[in-house]
Amino acid sequence: MSEVKVIQINESVFAENDREAEIIRQKLTAQGTLFLNVMSSPGSGKTTTLVALINRLKDRLKIGEMDVDIESSLDAQRVADMTGIPSLQIHNGGLCHIDADMTARALLEYDTAGLDLLILENIGNLVCPAEFDTGAHKNVTILSVPEGDNKPLKYPLMYQVSNVVLINKIDTMEYFDFSLEKARERILAMNPKAVLFPISAKTGEGLEAVCSWILTELQNLRN
Amino acid sequence: MSEVKVIQINESVFAENDREAEIIRQKLTAQGTLFLNVMSSPGSGKTTTLVALINRLKDRLKIGEMDVDIESSLDAQRVADMTGIPSLQIHNGGLCHIDADMTARALLEYDTAGLDLLILENIGNLVCPAEFDTGAHKNVTILSVPEGDNKPLKYPLMYQVSNVVLINKIDTMEYFDFSLEKARERILAMNPKAVLFPISAKTGEGLEAVCSWILTELQNLRN
Repeated sequence: MSEVKVIQINESVFAENDREAEIIRQKLTAQGTLFLNVMSSPGSGKTTTLVALINRLKDRLKIGEMDVDIESSLDAQRVADMTGIPSLQIHNGGLCHIDADMTARALLEYDTAGLDLLILENIGNLVCPAEFDTGAHKNVTILSVPEGDNKPLKYPLMYQVSNVVLINKIDTMEYFDFSLEKARERILAMNPKAVLFPISAKTGEGLEAVCSWILTELQNLRN
Repeated sequence: MSEVKVIQINESVFAENDREAEIIRQKLTAQGTLFLNVMSSPGSGKTTTLVALINRLKDRLKIGEMDVDIESSLDAQRVADMTGIPSLQIHNGGLCHIDADMTARALLEYDTAGLDLLILENIGNLVCPAEFDTGAHKNVTILSVPEGDNKPLKYPLMYQVSNVVLINKIDTMEYFDFSLEKARERILAMNPKAVLFPISAKTGEGLEAVCSWILTELQNLRN
């Protein structure tokens, strides 16, 4: 069982979130570390997806992962156990988001030097995390088939701030009333630049395309 | 198509949420209206469940429904269209919760006199809504099978404040790694008085038991 570090971060010390986010981003860009912020509803498969992606990429990239939850350390432990990479659990004390200052404080505890890829698994929530720039280079949202294709209409900001949308659990498509076309149309209507990947973290379908996207983004960052 | 009223409520005017919640509760108790606050993740099936329950109960009870969303009116419209009962859409302007003051202001716009049952469909979120007493007599949380049986461990407050937990989408149990026993154990460990109902809003399984619970609670309220 890999070790998971736990830190408690309750409130933001500085108000200027965007400025702080930019400092984080510049620092990580300078050291060549691609930073992804992964958001979604609870239960859409964030941890399972990250474990699957990390296991596909860990021989090619040096990867770190930070996990935000209210008070449990289940997700960071799961990532650490199932991938062997170092994982940091951030407890945010009941908040529904993590902001740039909280991320900066987490980064003081977590050495990112030499990492190719740093992943932040945000708290399961479609409202608050969308409002805070964490300093990530790219925002990724997961929409799972059982949640329904109307979620982009109900949580527009989340889809507006996301560069990539992973449509997860497509292996269960036949059991739910979910139209991939409608989901795509609704997401692109509010964010024409969004890149969509239909995936199943469980079966592995579509994950290689996501890995390719990550490798391309890393290359772009370093050029 | 039934008419849906839309009001915009952005921020709480009064700080004393609990006091306001108690005033709402006492008023509704005095007029014999049972008030249920229904919470869950996005996509767990709140609207589908409410439509199914209302259609089962509407010949026996006079029912009203209020729906909170950031800026869309999809859910209130769906409830109104599919049940024929009057529905109020509350737009909360991007907040992740509704509090007692916002509820009180919504009630100024929505006549509850003569209602047996008033249902509040809270915003899809497992963090913020748990923190605010809305004045409801009972809190109901929906946990859907695709979300996983570990959600009670990750969002403990939601399960601590809920009187009833509906385990929804049990018709999809064989496609997901979900243990009803583990979910039950985890919920009862943090809230021994919680009442659990496994249901499928889609197939109707288990819904009669929920209706019976509602009818019993209404009787208790009036005795």
